[in-house]
Amino acid sequence: MEEDKFKDECGIFGIYGHPKAARMTYLGIFALQHRGQESAGIVTSDGNTLIRHRGMGLVTDVFDNQRVREIEGKIAMGHVRYSTTGGTHIENAQPLTIISGRGQLAIGHNGNLVNTKYLRNKLEKEGAIFQTTSDSEVIVQLISHSKMSDLHEAISDALSNVKGAYSLLLMTPNELIGVRDPFGFRPLCIGRLERAYVLASETCALDMVGAKYIRDVEPGEMVIINRKGLKSYEAVPSYQYDLFTEGKYMPEKEAQCIFEYIYFARPDSKIFGENVYKIRKELGRQLVREHPVDADVVIPIPDSGVSAAMGFAEESKIHYELGLIRNHYVGRTFIDPEQSIREVGVQIKLNPVREVIENKKVVVVDDSIVRGTTCQKIMKMIRNVGAKEIHLRISSPPIRFSCFYGIDTPSSKELIASNNSIEEIRNFMEVDTLGYLSIDGLLKPVEKHNKAFCLACFNGNYPIKERR
Amino acid sequence: MEEDKFKDECGIFGIYGHPKAARMTYLGIFALQHRGQESAGIVTSDGNTLIRHRGMGLVTDVFDNQRVREIEGKIAMGHVRYSTTGGTHIENAQPLTIISGRGQLAIGHNGNLVNTKYLRNKLEKEGAIFQTTSDSEVIVQLISHSKMSDLHEAISDALSNVKGAYSLLLMTPNELIGVRDPFGFRPLCIGRLERAYVLASETCALDMVGAKYIRDVEPGEMVIINRKGLKSYEAVPSYQYDLFTEGKYMPEKEAQCIFEYIYFARPDSKIFGENVYKIRKELGRQLVREHPVDADVVIPIPDSGVSAAMGFAEESKIHYELGLIRNHYVGRTFIDPEQSIREVGVQIKLNPVREVIENKKVVVVDDSIVRGTTCQKIMKMIRNVGAKEIHLRISSPPIRFSCFYGIDTPSSKELIASNNSIEEIRNFMEVDTLGYLSIDGLLKPVEKHNKAFCLACFNGNYPIKERR
Amino acid sequence: MEEDKFKDECGIFGIYGHPKAARMTYLGIFALQHRGQESAGIVTSDGNTLIRHRGMGLVTDVFDNQRVREIEGKIAMGHVRYSTTGGTHIENAQPLTIISGRGQLAIGHNGNLVNTKYLRNKLEKEGAIFQTTSDSEVIVQLISHSKMSDLHEAISDALSNVKGAYSLLLMTPNELIGVRDPFGFRPLCIGRLERAYVLASETCALDMVGAKYIRDVEPGEMVIINRKGLKSYEAVPSYQYDLFTEGKYMPEKEAQCIFEYIYFARPDSKIFGENVYKIRKELGRQLVREHPVDADVVIPIPDSGVSAAMGFAEESKIHYELGLIRNHYVGRTFIDPEQSIREVGVQIKLNPVREVIENKKVVVVDDSIVRGTTCQKIMKMIRNVGAKEIHLRISSPPIRFSCFYGIDTPSSKELIASNNSIEEIRNFMEVDTLGYLSIDGLLKPVEKHNKAFCLACFNGNYPIKERR
Amino acid sequence: MEEDKFKDECGIFGIYGHPKAARMTYLGIFALQHRGQESAGIVTSDGNTLIRHRGMGLVTDVFDNQRVREIEGKIAMGHVRYSTTGGTHIENAQPLTIISGRGQLAIGHNGNLVNTKYLRNKLEKEGAIFQTTSDSEVIVQLISHSKMSDLHEAISDALSNVKGAYSLLLMTPNELIGVRDPFGFRPLCIGRLERAYVLASETCALDMVGAKYIRDVEPGEMVIINRKGLKSYEAVPSYQYDLFTEGKYMPEKEAQCIFEYIYFARPDSKIFGENVYKIRKELGRQLVREHPVDADVVIPIPDSGVSAAMGFAEESKIHYELGLIRNHYVGRTFIDPEQSIREVGVQIKLNPVREVIENKKVVVVDDSIVRGTTCQKIMKMIRNVGAKEIHLRISSPPIRFSCFYGIDTPSSKELIASNNSIEEIRNFMEVDTLGYLSIDGLLKPVEKHNKAFCLACFNGNYPIKERR
Repeated sequence: MEEDKFKDECGIFGIYGHPKAARMTYLGIFALQHRGQESAGIVTSDGNTLIRHRGMGLVTDVFDNQRVREIEGKIAMGHVRYSTTGGTHIENAQPLTIISGRGQLAIGHNGNLVNTKYLRNKLEKEGAIFQTTSDSEVIVQLISHSKMSDLHEAISDALSNVKGAYSLLLMTPNELIGVRDPFGFRPLCIGRLERAYVLASETCALDMVGAKYIRDVEPGEMVIINRKGLKSYEAVPSYQYDLFTEGKYMPEKEAQCIFEYIYFARPDSKIFGENVYKIRKELGRQLVREHPVDADVVIPIPDSGVSAAMGFAEESKIHYELGLIRNHYVGRTFIDPEQSIREVGVQIKLNPVREVIENKKVVVVDDSIVRGTTCQKIMKMIRNVGAKEIHLRISSPPIRFSCFYGIDTPSSKELIASNNSIEEIRNFMEVDTLGYLSIDGLLKPVEKHNKAFCLACFNGNYPIKERR
Repeated sequence: MEEDKFKDECGIFGIYGHPKAARMTYLGIFALQHRGQESAGIVTSDGNTLIRHRGMGLVTDVFDNQRVREIEGKIAMGHVRYSTTGGTHIENAQPLTIISGRGQLAIGHNGNLVNTKYLRNKLEKEGAIFQTTSDSEVIVQLISHSKMSDLHEAISDALSNVKGAYSLLLMTPNELIGVRDPFGFRPLCIGRLERAYVLASETCALDMVGAKYIRDVEPGEMVIINRKGLKSYEAVPSYQYDLFTEGKYMPEKEAQCIFEYIYFARPDSKIFGENVYKIRKELGRQLVREHPVDADVVIPIPDSGVSAAMGFAEESKIHYELGLIRNHYVGRTFIDPEQSIREVGVQIKLNPVREVIENKKVVVVDDSIVRGTTCQKIMKMIRNVGAKEIHLRISSPPIRFSCFYGIDTPSSKELIASNNSIEEIRNFMEVDTLGYLSIDGLLKPVEKHNKAFCLACFNGNYPIKERR
Repeated sequence: MEEDKFKDECGIFGIYGHPKAARMTYLGIFALQHRGQESAGIVTSDGNTLIRHRGMGLVTDVFDNQRVREIEGKIAMGHVRYSTTGGTHIENAQPLTIISGRGQLAIGHNGNLVNTKYLRNKLEKEGAIFQTTSDSEVIVQLISHSKMSDLHEAISDALSNVKGAYSLLLMTPNELIGVRDPFGFRPLCIGRLERAYVLASETCALDMVGAKYIRDVEPGEMVIINRKGLKSYEAVPSYQYDLFTEGKYMPEKEAQCIFEYIYFARPDSKIFGENVYKIRKELGRQLVREHPVDADVVIPIPDSGVSAAMGFAEESKIHYELGLIRNHYVGRTFIDPEQSIREVGVQIKLNPVREVIENKKVVVVDDSIVRGTTCQKIMKMIRNVGAKEIHLRISSPPIRFSCFYGIDTPSSKELIASNNSIEEIRNFMEVDTLGYLSIDGLLKPVEKHNKAFCLACFNGNYPIKERR
Repeated sequence: MEEDKFKDECGIFGIYGHPKAARMTYLGIFALQHRGQESAGIVTSDGNTLIRHRGMGLVTDVFDNQRVREIEGKIAMGHVRYSTTGGTHIENAQPLTIISGRGQLAIGHNGNLVNTKYLRNKLEKEGAIFQTTSDSEVIVQLISHSKMSDLHEAISDALSNVKGAYSLLLMTPNELIGVRDPFGFRPLCIGRLERAYVLASETCALDMVGAKYIRDVEPGEMVIINRKGLKSYEAVPSYQYDLFTEGKYMPEKEAQCIFEYIYFARPDSKIFGENVYKIRKELGRQLVREHPVDADVVIPIPDSGVSAAMGFAEESKIHYELGLIRNHYVGRTFIDPEQSIREVGVQIKLNPVREVIENKKVVVVDDSIVRGTTCQKIMKMIRNVGAKEIHLRISSPPIRFSCFYGIDTPSSKELIASNNSIEEIRNFMEVDTLGYLSIDGLLKPVEKHNKAFCLACFNGNYPIKERR
């Protein structure tokens, strides 16, 4: 159930060299809508000037009545932003566009910096003024204040001061630039559509516009796309690290966010080089190996648990069934303030199929548990239609630590696994057995790639020391 | 794929005797949203007066800003209406409320009449004026023009003139009435929530408000719910048929719409006494028996083919996989008029998972084919990511005839199976094999109930002779 | 001050034979906006079918985003409706369109019937159903239930049953019909624009579209405009009165609403054959003759008192000054629920000019007083900026009786002059002297026309006995 | 006619020390709505944080659905902005709020700077980034980049670099600051409401909230209002001028905008110490002395010419009449793209009263002529209803030069008086005589004050040499 999940911050999409760049960008961020539903924005270029269009809400809402899609111009980029509970203001909608001594610049950011406060203080001492509290504004201020005269060098210079997670798109009236931080926390891939280049958070956005996947932007890489083609650079030259990071910051290995596999990315996307759906199924298979069970049916919590449940069913030879039906019309607008209705709760989103569950030993599979309250209600719902036994299986390890690299995560106080043993959680859920996947099990489907992943939310090993 | 499917006309929900009747109705029609997305309406009663609230769009949109849900009163009813391509006007939104010599009356209708034109002519000759072209207005005019002084008798009298499909809710300031036509084309069920009675198109609406399923309203039954409780009557007394129908109209057997099982109803609903999901899986199993195939994977066209594909996979022992991922943010608002984008087409809704399909012999399961154009595009999409063989399996017989009983159906000219042999369709789809379920196979999972179903869209045997 | 004034019910406009009929109608009802701000509607004809477009709010709001103005077709009519405090529903927006045995018919009504209840009961007994509580629906039901086969005869037949005030526009796909009741309560004029005919509530709407004023529709006249040109008929043939009205109803003389001159109509309009602005100035002159005063300045309460104040100043040779400035941005949307602000009250609409008023003997002129509460606040405002003396002059007699012929009027309980002597009102207003125009004085500027006016709100002589 | 007039840029309103500061600010900017209809904004403080609320459109539209008016807090300020034809973006809506090393700061600006380009270049070289093209952002950047540690000194420091016209409101979470440039181009006054202080563009805003007018903020004065009360400072200390302006910039005398009297301000306001309505009437009287005429009636072009026409009538003893009636419902929303309708043109806004004009020698009075096209159409309209002679009188001198100090003015090419002699203009207007007021005559009503006014638009003597 999504509302109990982490939220990824954003999705980004840019295209260079396509006659319908704005239109393609519209489609691209539409395909990335699952990465953010709060606001959407597109920046277009006519070769001389950047124009920004943005609004609160879904891509289709924001751009339905506007003429954005028909704007001419060969370069464009877009952004979708997630919905938090707090201050959701149009000011925070991205991309951000600014005018500086170097001309116009647009920026779209996926990720979170951890030394924002330090950087803002430093910049404010130099007289910088801020209109938002966003990390993106910090990055463009650093670029603007850099003493490097060349824009690309100024970007490198700016990023050498920045600590944290960032997959960035930058755009001038004539150029599209993509950057991934040295740890590679968040994804960013490169595609080709005829003569045009595309940069996107996930490959599903490439598929949408008919672009072919070329490769990922590498951790620490900056790609610059202009009329000369695509060129690759070190985002932050190594010598800069040494000065700045006191020898500590330069990553020994990558720290790609494993949660993209577990939950965020769309199953049809290839992330960090692997198809997400296949990884998720494999996590379900692994779950059987670690926590086998004798049962009659395997049911997913839709849609988050579907792929893992299918893997679990295949490996365990237990029947896979749809035991919970989702109401697809539950959107952002379902509001009912009154208590007695709020108790209706998960019923609004899910309805159990009694015929599937009654008098059965049921394995329920989901991808993760955050606070646990929604999961508990679903377990209750399943019991109420007559499940004989409930065996809850989670296709990731217990989440015990907050994320500081671009995920909207509750404080560790609110994380059920941060404060309770597995047995206590099982008790709280009132299920017969509860099995989480181990960290080793989680890494198994991807170990062949010999890639390093950030596992901080499970084991507390934060790749960057500072926290904001 | 929905856009290529039939559309059911409506969903209805009414409640008598609940302190939060308006609120419950809001939840009830929300659960029935899949039966109609064009408009939504709620009528409430304060014991003396009916007040109508309605608007274009989804339930959550229409009632988000209105205070309807907080309206006091123990009786309420609601309606959701489907979306057609043509003239969608607020005037057609239901429920309809009228004032006549008998006071206020509200009506909500699911189904279509076949002798509307005749009845309108007759009424207009008596001086009746119409403000809409809806069947509902014809029914209330008939009630109003009836010479019977008692409202219930006037309803019976009115319905004795009416031919066609109707599940109706009627409401006065003090009473809730449910009627199902003698053939029982469209569903209508009765539930109990503490002391309150609920009437709804599907049981998923009962589940939503926490009501317990009691039974279906029987074909030809009228239930009247007021402070004396629920009482059951013959909707149209038998002697009236004889006069009116020249001995032909009184149904020898029922004609419940089999398409509720195939496509319309939510899988978690019980319709005509059976769980929809289970029936759909059984249709998938039967499909294997009729059209076995040697293949590597079974994939559904989501969401319409999911249940049948699961049944097919179980029976055939071929792996069930998700080979097409659906973008859940595609809503009514996705509009892009320009040709080059429209060609993007199904890509906006579905994206194939290459890793699942490439170099595989693939069984693709869907519930039905109407025009065939969308299905063709999906087959092409699957071929393009490298399927070695495609075996298309449809969990219903070929649709060869239009429906006149409440389904928004294209003319038979547009029905692919009306004008083409199976082999021609297979050719058009460019698939290796194509298998439709037989009518016998379709009836198998429900034959034990010894119920009669309307199969007109498959075999042209229309239960009622007249067509409108 | 408008909020303390009577409200006229509506404005109507129709045009036959113009290639841009919809567009002209848009302009025409825009010019009549002062007669109603609650809702606006336009009905167009393509020669075969009537299409209705309507919405809540001002003409420019309702038709801003719609394509109505571009609709082709040579016949169209429109309606603006006033804003009441109570149930303002889209259902009540006019024109009303209906389908009957005679085909489609649209109706727009200015005025009020007094025997609506009787007629509804009668019609309901014949089985008629109503969807609104409007008089217009009663009229079309009567037309529909008439036994006359010819539409024009059916209209006459229907109107012979109707008592009250009505200026009507009726429209079929091929014809435009205008009717004024035998008393001629409400205005309706005929204009010519090249080959097209125009019917409108006021001549300012003719001016707007560039049409030339021909004449008024006469009381009791029905004009039928179709491809044969304009023909004139008796709206209700005399013999019908005799039967129906028991010899009482046929008007001996006309009863045109004198309040059109006092307040409703726009000053640039010609109403009942006379320019409104000139009449209003003349009423101001007459006021000097009846209530002379020694003072320093004459100021109007804008905008209602402007014309009369100018006449008063001319006749009395006292300087005319603007002592109260109106905020033109006060619209329907100014809402502030909190008490402390509501006390700001008239300040939101009017601000006094201290330099004009301080230490002066001030004559304040307005056109009428209804409840008196707003007027009292304005007098207080004038005193507070230092007026030495205040002499309030009203260019109409005291309003003592409610109107039943198309004006939104408070009950007589709320009419200050119904319950208080002139001296008591003067006291309540805390002014030095108060002078109302006499009924004779009111009639003087129009007596040369030898026309009869309805003076019921001043003297209680209701032209029609029944009240609804 | 307004669309042919200059537009003032903005209106500003701030209040310190009132328990309902947000609400008062709402009312205050509502009273200043005539100074700008494009956008509206309010900034509130809870003592710690500034919160901004703004939107496109009228004050009542922007703040109708928002809870702004109920926000608690004792300090607030607001802004209304005019409507230009070009890029009207929400980004340009004021007040602007920023975060700098000094904390949060809000700014609202009325006026225009003339050295913006120079200042932006200078700031961009220091690394500043801009998100808008507004002068306000330049001012806050200068404040932020100032080396002065004290905010008030930083403001002075910033303003010492700025050339042009500015009446400013600045606000921190605890303080309200008002500044008027040394020339005093634009107005700004101080009021008192119980214990609270109010700053506003015009006194009509003081009247609206019930505040008492104290005095104007003096040219070159900065008033700081905080819990210690109101204190007055030199906005830009004299020694700073010497350094910066090479002895040229410090104004020898003030240069208050005379157009506030002629057109911008509301007639009930006191501007630069004088009531606007009285000045305007006096200009009308002076016009008679300079351009006497023998005529039958004096009519104003409403509303801009009303006061001067009244003065003209009084002085000339010619009857004052309303010969043109204005449609008050013409708002921002009247849009009709099609040519044939656009020709309807001024008819949409004004309608002549034939009875007043026909066969008369008519004096038509307006306050000014800018492009002359609308005026020409009005003259034609007057001729068409039968005026025997037309004598056009303008209560200001010919406008020959563009304004650079806060007025939205066409280029001099488009100013009719810049390119044509009086006789040529008379010919273009097709009137019998045309009389403009002389500069001396314009100054006469205000000369007793011995104040200097900016007359640049009439005589080209720009108080500040630079133009932007």
